[in-house]
Amino acid sequence: MGADLPHPFDPLSLAEIETAIATVKKAHGDVLFNVVTVQEPRKAEMTAWLEGPETAPRPKRVADVVVIAPGGKVYDGLVDLAEPKITKWELLDGEQPIITMEELQLVEHIARKDPKVIEQCVISGIPAEDMHKVYCDPWTIGYDERFGSGVRLQQAFMYYRPDVDSCQYQYPLDFCPIYDADKQEIIAIDVPTLRRPLSKVAPADYHPAAVEARGGYRSDIKPINITQPEGVSFEIKGREIEWQNWKFHIGFSYREGIVLNNITFNDKGTVRPIFYRLSLAEMVVPYGNPERPHQRKHALDQGEYGAGYMANSLSLGCDCKGSIHYLDAHFPTRAGGLRTIKNAICIHEEDAGILFKHVDFRDDSVIVTRGRKLIVQQVFTAANYEYVVAWVFHQDGTIQPEIKLTGILNTYAMLPDEDTHGWGTQVFPGVNAHNHQHLFCLRVDANVDGPNNTVFVNDAVPSPHPVGSAENFYGNGFFSRRTKLATAGASRTDYDGATSRTWEICNPSKLNPYSRKPVSYKLVSREVPGLLPKPGSLVWKRAAFARHTVHVTPYADDQLWPAGRHVPQTSGEPSRGLPEWIGDGAASIDDTDVVLWHTFGLTHFPAPEDFPVMPAEPMTLLLRPRNFFASNPVLDVPPSYSSTPSQVAAGGKGVTDAADRMSRLAFGQANREG
Amino acid sequence: MGADLPHPFDPLSLAEIETAIATVKKAHGDVLFNVVTVQEPRKAEMTAWLEGPETAPRPKRVADVVVIAPGGKVYDGLVDLAEPKITKWELLDGEQPIITMEELQLVEHIARKDPKVIEQCVISGIPAEDMHKVYCDPWTIGYDERFGSGVRLQQAFMYYRPDVDSCQYQYPLDFCPIYDADKQEIIAIDVPTLRRPLSKVAPADYHPAAVEARGGYRSDIKPINITQPEGVSFEIKGREIEWQNWKFHIGFSYREGIVLNNITFNDKGTVRPIFYRLSLAEMVVPYGNPERPHQRKHALDQGEYGAGYMANSLSLGCDCKGSIHYLDAHFPTRAGGLRTIKNAICIHEEDAGILFKHVDFRDDSVIVTRGRKLIVQQVFTAANYEYVVAWVFHQDGTIQPEIKLTGILNTYAMLPDEDTHGWGTQVFPGVNAHNHQHLFCLRVDANVDGPNNTVFVNDAVPSPHPVGSAENFYGNGFFSRRTKLATAGASRTDYDGATSRTWEICNPSKLNPYSRKPVSYKLVSREVPGLLPKPGSLVWKRAAFARHTVHVTPYADDQLWPAGRHVPQTSGEPSRGLPEWIGDGAASIDDTDVVLWHTFGLTHFPAPEDFPVMPAEPMTLLLRPRNFFASNPVLDVPPSYSSTPSQVAAGGKGVTDAADRMSRLAFGQANREG
Ligand SMILES: [Co+2]
Ligand SMILES: [Co+2]
Repeated sequence: MGADLPHPFDPLSLAEIETAIATVKKAHGDVLFNVVTVQEPRKAEMTAWLEGPETAPRPKRVADVVVIAPGGKVYDGLVDLAEPKITKWELLDGEQPIITMEELQLVEHIARKDPKVIEQCVISGIPAEDMHKVYCDPWTIGYDERFGSGVRLQQAFMYYRPDVDSCQYQYPLDFCPIYDADKQEIIAIDVPTLRRPLSKVAPADYHPAAVEARGGYRSDIKPINITQPEGVSFEIKGREIEWQNWKFHIGFSYREGIVLNNITFNDKGTVRPIFYRLSLAEMVVPYGNPERPHQRKHALDQGEYGAGYMANSLSLGCDCKGSIHYLDAHFPTRAGGLRTIKNAICIHEEDAGILFKHVDFRDDSVIVTRGRKLIVQQVFTAANYEYVVAWVFHQDGTIQPEIKLTGILNTYAMLPDEDTHGWGTQVFPGVNAHNHQHLFCLRVDANVDGPNNTVFVNDAVPSPHPVGSAENFYGNGFFSRRTKLATAGASRTDYDGATSRTWEICNPSKLNPYSRKPVSYKLVSREVPGLLPKPGSLVWKRAAFARHTVHVTPYADDQLWPAGRHVPQTSGEPSRGLPEWIGDGAASIDDTDVVLWHTFGLTHFPAPEDFPVMPAEPMTLLLRPRNFFASNPVLDVPPSYSSTPSQVAAGGKGVTDAADRMSRLAFGQANREG
Repeated sequence: MGADLPHPFDPLSLAEIETAIATVKKAHGDVLFNVVTVQEPRKAEMTAWLEGPETAPRPKRVADVVVIAPGGKVYDGLVDLAEPKITKWELLDGEQPIITMEELQLVEHIARKDPKVIEQCVISGIPAEDMHKVYCDPWTIGYDERFGSGVRLQQAFMYYRPDVDSCQYQYPLDFCPIYDADKQEIIAIDVPTLRRPLSKVAPADYHPAAVEARGGYRSDIKPINITQPEGVSFEIKGREIEWQNWKFHIGFSYREGIVLNNITFNDKGTVRPIFYRLSLAEMVVPYGNPERPHQRKHALDQGEYGAGYMANSLSLGCDCKGSIHYLDAHFPTRAGGLRTIKNAICIHEEDAGILFKHVDFRDDSVIVTRGRKLIVQQVFTAANYEYVVAWVFHQDGTIQPEIKLTGILNTYAMLPDEDTHGWGTQVFPGVNAHNHQHLFCLRVDANVDGPNNTVFVNDAVPSPHPVGSAENFYGNGFFSRRTKLATAGASRTDYDGATSRTWEICNPSKLNPYSRKPVSYKLVSREVPGLLPKPGSLVWKRAAFARHTVHVTPYADDQLWPAGRHVPQTSGEPSRGLPEWIGDGAASIDDTDVVLWHTFGLTHFPAPEDFPVMPAEPMTLLLRPRNFFASNPVLDVPPSYSSTPSQVAAGGKGVTDAADRMSRLAFGQANREG
């Protein structure tokens, strides 16, 4: 087995994508390629190979293919890339595969030429000759019961730009064409009863010419330089990274974007597995305006467009600062060509402030050690919104997924004195930004010291005994109540702010030598709004993963995406993904290979501060080792300064002083450069 | 009025402290000075002066003094520093002033010589000649009903060091002497029924020699240099700082540490007030082991020791990295001398990643702008624990208090096979770390576009109408329910995770021009465990502020500290501070000068990862402008890169490229230095 073979976790290479496409084309002619991605290795085979790469067979490279054939026929296929040959070819019925960027690009051109769209633009106050100033953001239609799932549809949110460089979200139009992707034509337009003509307000743009016209840029920000003259502290071989005892494989899927596999931590020489696979597996952005047709605004962006397909090409010194390593992403084009997103993933280190510190008040003997973090990051653009997704690794064993939201609000037209009825906010004259939630589903394929894990809920609760009782005389007793989640059905659990609820993924067979508690990783997540659309609502049916903060399922190959494999235009009857897998709920999740699904996010009531483009709003959670290590695992990180009592008593003799010599007093030194 | 006069918000200078001490000594002889601090200017006078410094009288400089006179008599005094003369001198009855570091230092020396302490050490297995290896952490006694409040007491947590450089928290002793600070002697010892002799386990220290003996430090961390060759972006005059439209005064009190006053934001030329004063005003760390005498472990660290008095002297390149400005802190010694903590506050900027970004999917036209933050920080050591307190200012108007916890767990002895009964965790052989909470009280003296503000609770809730109804056919309706807090009594409110509850401090007289909602700052805080000690418990009585997530009171001079002015040994009967001020709860807090008190923090169930010294655990919250600005206030921050559709169409002509040229590919460039 040559070292030049792809790692079984690797995304398909350009050559592999080409092979898959050629194999399919040979057998099935000119089809449109919505997906050509790696079929992830079957876990049993992969685990055997990871444990014994010399003896176990290397998992095969298989392409997972989704195509649309003439007539709108959708096929799911598998291509064994070694042969190469097609090993599965299945016609789907009433399922719509992911919508590609190429499909999205088409809609605007077609809408601009559609007579009924032009008619509505004219009614809105746009002359027919100005149709080149009309723009549309095509979105998944979600689900519209008038059309069902059999016809491939998009809805087109309409906007106007007075100038080609203006931000069109300032000029939303009030009607909504529906686009048939098979026919490539507009088949209907939703027109509201209350008409809202095009706003005549002057734009307030954010591009440089507009800012200059308003008085220009601020000039009082001095540069901050971040450099690593001796290089970075991580090593990369292929797509496997090693940094500060961590080792893991960095994949990238059209669907989830960054996928982290086989995450291990070298604990004093013992390589301990922690997670088999981590990713953001799905998301949903339900909007809260109940008036038709706004109920259709609830994109499941990963299943419907793909966080990989929408990935930005990142730019050194702009998106990324410091010493950066990039990885590209490769995808098919629809016609069967190749597309590369250069710099789809950036990897870098940051200083993380004080890692630990203690001062003895007796003599001021002190240790202060600075921390470092590793960040694996991507940005994706979902029409108006930007999502900055960072996987932050800490030296102490903590993994911290962090998402920043920026970009632009989805906007709708409003009349000058219109009442938003609380469903939205006027963020600019004539612009109504509707309430919405951003709910993400973190998929945690656990492997905490081995595959057999159990999940517990931890609640911080007071002693049950009253104040004045012998057991709790002063009333201060409290403890962590652990509740085992024994079955998939019982695993549906919600955040409880009153008990600071956490979830603990533990290995019941491995006990910490000191605490004698099972080794575990704890999910600490506080940005966990419930799904506000009601039980039985369209969103509740389609995005079932968002009904609960946590679900746990026994591991099964191919159960990757909690709203199902093909998400566009699902009716939610029945709900796909998690509810199908959980079924009657009887499956044991105790001391077995389990996957934890965690829904987190935020509820966004827009305000004018968010317009015309939003300052990034961060949101984060922690996966923390608890009872996993026998002691603080970062004691061997060199301190910046350390003095012991005996060194203090000796007048400082022998102290460790490794303070960063590049730091300076802000006003105490002459400028060293420039 | 000379420019050399102190700003009325300034802490007392060394000269002013000297004047106050001399004035008191002259009148009252040799007393012990527990406090000599600035009496903060009366708000009415101060506001008048801030508005018209040329016409309004400059607020007087007054020293607020607390002394202990011979016989343990405690006096509260005021000294008018201009004259100078004593304007108030009041004997207190049964109140104990803050415990100073000097008082704490004494206890260990006395305990080591006390025969009954020696006797207990011998029982524990320590030879009497090894008393120099016995250490004690003196803590406030909290409240012990056997002794009441009249005698000044501390409890001494006992430890052992096999070696002078060993961490004594590995060797807790099981008994607890009680120290009388007036008599300077041990007056009692709490001895448990179940005895736990000194652990014989070998130490696992974190000092360099110990790490070297275990195999040494990791050597794979490459330097990260952070430099500002053109200087910093902030300006400081005296203690007033200006940065990115922000302006505020940085004070420092013995009690609260960093105090921020008169925080304003320059909104396109209009200086808009936001907060009159911000600080961490109190904290409490209740421990959850209900067995005597552990109920006494619930330090109100700020009221009982002082976050200023316990401040670390920060060190360039260790605690702080980059271009740093420091401010010192000045305090009296007990005997009436002077004490300076050099570098008690550090101030610096950091890169803050992507501030905003948007890509147009049509043509990849893009804007990406990097953000910056300003950090005003201190560290204080409360015996075993370190608290890193940072006030982070963002360019977009957000203020983000952030606290990191590090240092060492408070530990108690346990037998090898002892059951902790869930009240603690064995983190090391023989070491029981008890469950505890860290609860902080953020005091927000609001001034949102003027002094008259109102606080609302915001809850994200679904439409009341059922799925299928005309009003909510698809079930997706949701909105933000606003509830006015009209009276101090009604202001006692708790976090509700199910509604992602936030609190909004608004100015009902100023409406946002677009949203037509009152301008506001919103409190977004998710780390908000309830107080786990029960209603009626000792902690509940003493730390009443911690009973609710939010209280709101009408402003009153001198209502600064929510557990009262003198905290040590309060019985909680009646509860001091907030409950006294709120009284019958009838006071209006609607459209008037209000103070919001916010309790946040975390519940800490220790684990071996926390030992022997804890990796820093962060916790944060946001004060965010909502409907405060007419639009995104950072549009004039220069972008790193901007291309408009017309520029893209012109092949890139005219794009703005201000990418950071110091950034590098991790592996793509030869090393530039070294
Ligand atoms: Co949003
Ligand atoms: Co703690």
